[in-house]
Amino acid sequence: MSLHQSGWMVLTAALLLNQPAAAAANYPDAVASDPATMGWMVGSPPPADKQLRFDDGSYFRFPAMRWSVANFRQLMPTVNIPRGLGNAQPLVHAEDTAIDQLTFMPTGADKAMSWEASLLANYTDAIVVLHKGKVVYERYFGVMSPTAQHGVMSVTKTFVGTLAATLVAEGRLDDSKTVAHYVPELKQSAFGSATVRQLMDMTTGIRFSEDYADPNAEVWAHAAAGNPLPKPADYKGPRSYYEFLQTVKPEGKHGEAFHYRTANTDALGWVLARVSGKSVAQLLSERIWRRLGAEQDAYMSVDSTGTPFAGGGLNTGIRDLARFGEMIRNDGRANGKQIIPAAAVADIRAGGKQSDFAKAGYQQLKGWSYRNMWWVTHNPHGAFMARGVHGQALYIDPKAEMVIARFASHPVAGNAANDATSLPAYQALAEYLLQR
Amino acid sequence: MSLHQSGWMVLTAALLLNQPAAAAANYPDAVASDPATMGWMVGSPPPADKQLRFDDGSYFRFPAMRWSVANFRQLMPTVNIPRGLGNAQPLVHAEDTAIDQLTFMPTGADKAMSWEASLLANYTDAIVVLHKGKVVYERYFGVMSPTAQHGVMSVTKTFVGTLAATLVAEGRLDDSKTVAHYVPELKQSAFGSATVRQLMDMTTGIRFSEDYADPNAEVWAHAAAGNPLPKPADYKGPRSYYEFLQTVKPEGKHGEAFHYRTANTDALGWVLARVSGKSVAQLLSERIWRRLGAEQDAYMSVDSTGTPFAGGGLNTGIRDLARFGEMIRNDGRANGKQIIPAAAVADIRAGGKQSDFAKAGYQQLKGWSYRNMWWVTHNPHGAFMARGVHGQALYIDPKAEMVIARFASHPVAGNAANDATSLPAYQALAEYLLQR
Repeated sequence: MSLHQSGWMVLTAALLLNQPAAAAANYPDAVASDPATMGWMVGSPPPADKQLRFDDGSYFRFPAMRWSVANFRQLMPTVNIPRGLGNAQPLVHAEDTAIDQLTFMPTGADKAMSWEASLLANYTDAIVVLHKGKVVYERYFGVMSPTAQHGVMSVTKTFVGTLAATLVAEGRLDDSKTVAHYVPELKQSAFGSATVRQLMDMTTGIRFSEDYADPNAEVWAHAAAGNPLPKPADYKGPRSYYEFLQTVKPEGKHGEAFHYRTANTDALGWVLARVSGKSVAQLLSERIWRRLGAEQDAYMSVDSTGTPFAGGGLNTGIRDLARFGEMIRNDGRANGKQIIPAAAVADIRAGGKQSDFAKAGYQQLKGWSYRNMWWVTHNPHGAFMARGVHGQALYIDPKAEMVIARFASHPVAGNAANDATSLPAYQALAEYLLQR
Repeated sequence: MSLHQSGWMVLTAALLLNQPAAAAANYPDAVASDPATMGWMVGSPPPADKQLRFDDGSYFRFPAMRWSVANFRQLMPTVNIPRGLGNAQPLVHAEDTAIDQLTFMPTGADKAMSWEASLLANYTDAIVVLHKGKVVYERYFGVMSPTAQHGVMSVTKTFVGTLAATLVAEGRLDDSKTVAHYVPELKQSAFGSATVRQLMDMTTGIRFSEDYADPNAEVWAHAAAGNPLPKPADYKGPRSYYEFLQTVKPEGKHGEAFHYRTANTDALGWVLARVSGKSVAQLLSERIWRRLGAEQDAYMSVDSTGTPFAGGGLNTGIRDLARFGEMIRNDGRANGKQIIPAAAVADIRAGGKQSDFAKAGYQQLKGWSYRNMWWVTHNPHGAFMARGVHGQALYIDPKAEMVIARFASHPVAGNAANDATSLPAYQALAEYLLQR
């Protein structure tokens, strides 16, 4: 097996993707690619052409990946994130069937689209909308259901950034200190001289190429290091996320521009592990999952040394993702408790430097910023969001008192491919709920 | 990597072990081998000598296996067994601190032992005792806790046998039909001509050597087939549990004697999958876990085609295992529902043919029988139990209205090594609770 062809590689590469996206026109549409009707991994045994494997990468090719994003744990080792044994905080239902017919103008389009149509356009797997804390909309597609768990991809980063902001607000982590101060092993790497704050806001100057055509690009080394499968006999590279991070070289200066690079979150996860003595998965359980009133455990993928993939390895139920968003919307309070310090949430909502963000050149995200691994719109509603490849989203609109949690399996990894039919839809729904 | 040296092999081989056990005298005791104080997989990263790996088998060597039995999912792919989203059926506590001082005479010993001492003698990881449905005793050791999940090893078989007995009682499965009737692919194998009942009671005549010194023993082929890691390039054998089962050859006649062989349960799992159209994991969720009032999801390990390991792959919380036992004690009722048909429970309790069982020669289990993958004592209390290597146990004493769920990580796989300090302890506790 070549590690360059392995599925893990494909997954991690996809997680890192941050490029203007190609159109999805060459892919089968959401109905034709529905993973339930395609019958992946159904049967005893599944027919050969319906079997998906981790070791040959078949699991992450479209449309098969539409099954895999809801079943990562069947393909790779994972660590549990217990919710504890108490009762969940109930979600009150107040469904609004008019939402399906709501229309909006997709970015750059000349024809309006309905909310309902946008779900198919975006290959939505599951979506929950809360308004003032109540469920006004909830849908499942393909192999998703309320008790299924789905990869949140880079929304994982937002959880890690929120944990870091929490420890900063509590005075347990000094974000002005260097990374090397907390993790001496990173002193010789590009991360060593960066501040923790620069990690948290992804303004480090590190070399991390995502040029898939280049076999020497760092993205491949990162994926190979984190791959939990046995390494080939001739493998010479780093053998874990932590080993990989120590090899990262500088490029440019720290603190001058936003560069979206997954390795920053893995480094931040290491800082958190050192500060707390706990893995990111343990922290997520203790600080959030056990206190939130979650109804399902969550889980993370791990490398061969047991390190959770902080940059993209989290899987949750859609309703628990919505609960997390609602807690953030309520300034960190949920389930009768202050879960995240209000100061940390205020710092997230205030956002980062828009001038730093502008340098990254996101055409559809003009005026946005990035802070504590959240994407901040700076729109009149003060909306901010978490984003993961293939359409994972947690969108919080404070003015509209709205939280949208969405899982998707769009054939194009980069969110530029679905933003045009997502962001205006979210805004239209916010305006509808405000006026309702 | 040689598959013959792989950890999965070691695990599966251990699961299959059914031999008079060597004394544990050469192993460090329970305190010296405590997995929490040994610090396995603790640190960021864990020190090299504290890292446990699946691919080199290090994870299943004693004492490291004491960590691994509570963390299988961090080492291999698994499938979730959802409990659903409702509230758990609460466990009422009525702890009896006198139990620790209870004494009993271990089998063949000349000196009494306290209940408390027996837990260390048996390398207990977690134990819950219910009396009349209330928790009278609950303890955790090492890395176990109420929210942790532990491999139940061959107690998995008991769940599969209970599901089969359920479908038989419902008339959906005819246990007098041959295995080939339900799974034509097994027609040419030794299983083909056996009845489903013979599978359920393990009275098939199949060749399944557990001679670890013999590299051609079937136990190695079974383990290699089920190993979810990529196969070596020169690997020629079966590549899944189902492929392995098709290679099993006859030995002796069906229906004449009890032979404890894990492959029977894997074959039964295949029958259940064909009859129901669902995997054993899905059936376990739908028929038991979602209805029992369980407080945690359970999970099973899977092979590379996604087939759950029916012979030994289940992991549960200790309190949920106790809930399952209490449901069986109450003739299949729990959480206000009839979960398993009363007729199926009655058939389990009635037991199998003691004359068939006697031929297997268990010195410490004289007069017992095996039915629907339960071990039936036929003692005056009508006790019956589920058993898994290294000391996993679910013991139900109807007369004493007592259920004991125990997880352990005894250095010796075969339960003969711990029966002497387990079975008399259970009996002593039953008598104490009867007289209390």
